[in-house]
Amino acid sequence: MRNRRFVLASRPAAMPEEGNWKLVETAMPGPGEGEILVRTIWLSVDPYMRGRIAAGKGYAKGIEIGAVMGGGGVGEVVRSRHPAFKPGDIVESMAFGWQEYAVLGPAGTRKVDPAHGPIRHALGILGMPGLTAYFALFDIGRPKPGDTVVVSAASGAVGQVVGQLAKMAGCRTVAVAGSEAKLAWCRDELGYDAGVNHRTAGDLPAALAAACPGGIDIYFDNTAGLIADAAMGLVNLGARIVQCGRIAISSQPGPDIGPRFHGQFIATRCRMEGFLIFDHAHRYDEGLRRLGPWVREGKLRYREDIVEGFENTPRALIRVLSGTNFGKQLVKVADEPGR
Amino acid sequence: MRNRRFVLASRPAAMPEEGNWKLVETAMPGPGEGEILVRTIWLSVDPYMRGRIAAGKGYAKGIEIGAVMGGGGVGEVVRSRHPAFKPGDIVESMAFGWQEYAVLGPAGTRKVDPAHGPIRHALGILGMPGLTAYFALFDIGRPKPGDTVVVSAASGAVGQVVGQLAKMAGCRTVAVAGSEAKLAWCRDELGYDAGVNHRTAGDLPAALAAACPGGIDIYFDNTAGLIADAAMGLVNLGARIVQCGRIAISSQPGPDIGPRFHGQFIATRCRMEGFLIFDHAHRYDEGLRRLGPWVREGKLRYREDIVEGFENTPRALIRVLSGTNFGKQLVKVADEPGR
Repeated sequence: MRNRRFVLASRPAAMPEEGNWKLVETAMPGPGEGEILVRTIWLSVDPYMRGRIAAGKGYAKGIEIGAVMGGGGVGEVVRSRHPAFKPGDIVESMAFGWQEYAVLGPAGTRKVDPAHGPIRHALGILGMPGLTAYFALFDIGRPKPGDTVVVSAASGAVGQVVGQLAKMAGCRTVAVAGSEAKLAWCRDELGYDAGVNHRTAGDLPAALAAACPGGIDIYFDNTAGLIADAAMGLVNLGARIVQCGRIAISSQPGPDIGPRFHGQFIATRCRMEGFLIFDHAHRYDEGLRRLGPWVREGKLRYREDIVEGFENTPRALIRVLSGTNFGKQLVKVADEPGR
Repeated sequence: MRNRRFVLASRPAAMPEEGNWKLVETAMPGPGEGEILVRTIWLSVDPYMRGRIAAGKGYAKGIEIGAVMGGGGVGEVVRSRHPAFKPGDIVESMAFGWQEYAVLGPAGTRKVDPAHGPIRHALGILGMPGLTAYFALFDIGRPKPGDTVVVSAASGAVGQVVGQLAKMAGCRTVAVAGSEAKLAWCRDELGYDAGVNHRTAGDLPAALAAACPGGIDIYFDNTAGLIADAAMGLVNLGARIVQCGRIAISSQPGPDIGPRFHGQFIATRCRMEGFLIFDHAHRYDEGLRRLGPWVREGKLRYREDIVEGFENTPRALIRVLSGTNFGKQLVKVADEPGR
């Protein structure tokens, strides 16, 4: 039996293309002492991956040309040389990489209990994106009832959770998304109070101002770029800007040049802070103790966008980076056990 | 007897010129019930004034054409219709305006005790600039021993205090200023550990990087512009950016366009927050209880740049806005009592 994996073939200058990765076959890996061999069932594709394949310096080491593409997944243990794991266990880890079989160590490998719901949730609402929304909104955003909260990429993996949590906290929520279908879903299913289509708005600052007659108290930024510019012009006294993602400019060649807002910072005494979920790894249980019951009770909804087939993993990432996806993007690599 | 005052004659498009103000004579004002008449001794000219005479929206209402130019001062009460003040009292207020005699109400009018040191200190180290440095550095910057603290406009009204306070807190301090004389003084008198001349550095990011081999933990920004750009490229994990002033771009026509740093926020999880001293008016005593003894004991030094003569007030402000001043800029309008 052989293993298939995607290795990085070249670095994209702008929006990645499928040819930036190459599908290769290798021998089936064997777990060393203290390791496990896992069959990949779900792969997660996420905006942060664009930074990992870029030339510049990011928050994590970049992926070398010829190396297997990094990424998180959920899979089934098929062989274990670690006492804490046995064949049949379902595990989640950021260290799967884009491959059909992965050898994992115990660090960062988390058991997933299928009794708690779909195992793919460990990559979404009960995983990195859901926890990002939870900690970034409450730690940096600090919502208060009555706050107006604007969320960019509002129907995305993180944004959809932010909108619902802010609503639970008594805020007025405003979605920014790239299609009418996304906005309708944000309004009807996630309870967003208003929405702006950034692709068709024309005068985006004016459209956002119309959706935020009382200004913006929290801007949860998943995009940067023109949406962030429009939001910065509307922030209220004491506003908080959660700098969580910058998907709108992640594939833009060259530096991001545009208007700056130093005067706005002084005029409003607003605060902007960057967020990365890995800083909060020791607090995952704290977040999951809240999110888990809310998901089971139906108080938090979560939309996933599923691409079938391992060979389509690069295409799935490109969907995310171009905003073609609708909901958290996943790749179904193989069947779940017992199906 | 007549009163002389400067009224705003026109709004500058870029760097102000003396002709933007007009010296006019009016009748000597009389204090109403509950007011005092004050003879101006010292006027303060400060970067924030550029925003007050600009066309755009700032944190305070702009000054109308034809209205007396706003600004703080220190003076002697010559007539009082308020029981808390008597002739001969020295008072400080933000409401003097550029005039030789001012009518003030009790709100925001603070008595200054000449026994505590030079009365002009109420406009500097023991006034708005000193308190700005104190609250902005400790509340937003949160210095820890070992932090590298970069201060732009390091010899200015605020910057010189920031550098000394950060040093007292165990930090390594790096001055950015516009002349070798300023940098030498920062080093020799204020204890700055390193300095960068932003006018002659050539490659400013490289020069700042050389002065900050361990990166930047706190960037105290009094300038915005190219200095801020250079600093943002060097911020460490968890850095704090105190957005206090933007003198480098305050007279620049049009919006401030340049590189943005959303990726840097995520990569370092840095935090940037705007500061305005007026938010902290209820805490002035708290700050003065620390700063006062340090000044009297010589633990805090403070350099002032004094322009003589009321008629030179516009010129003094232009000195500040162009960086020609060296230390806190004051205008000596009249003699102190008893001299």
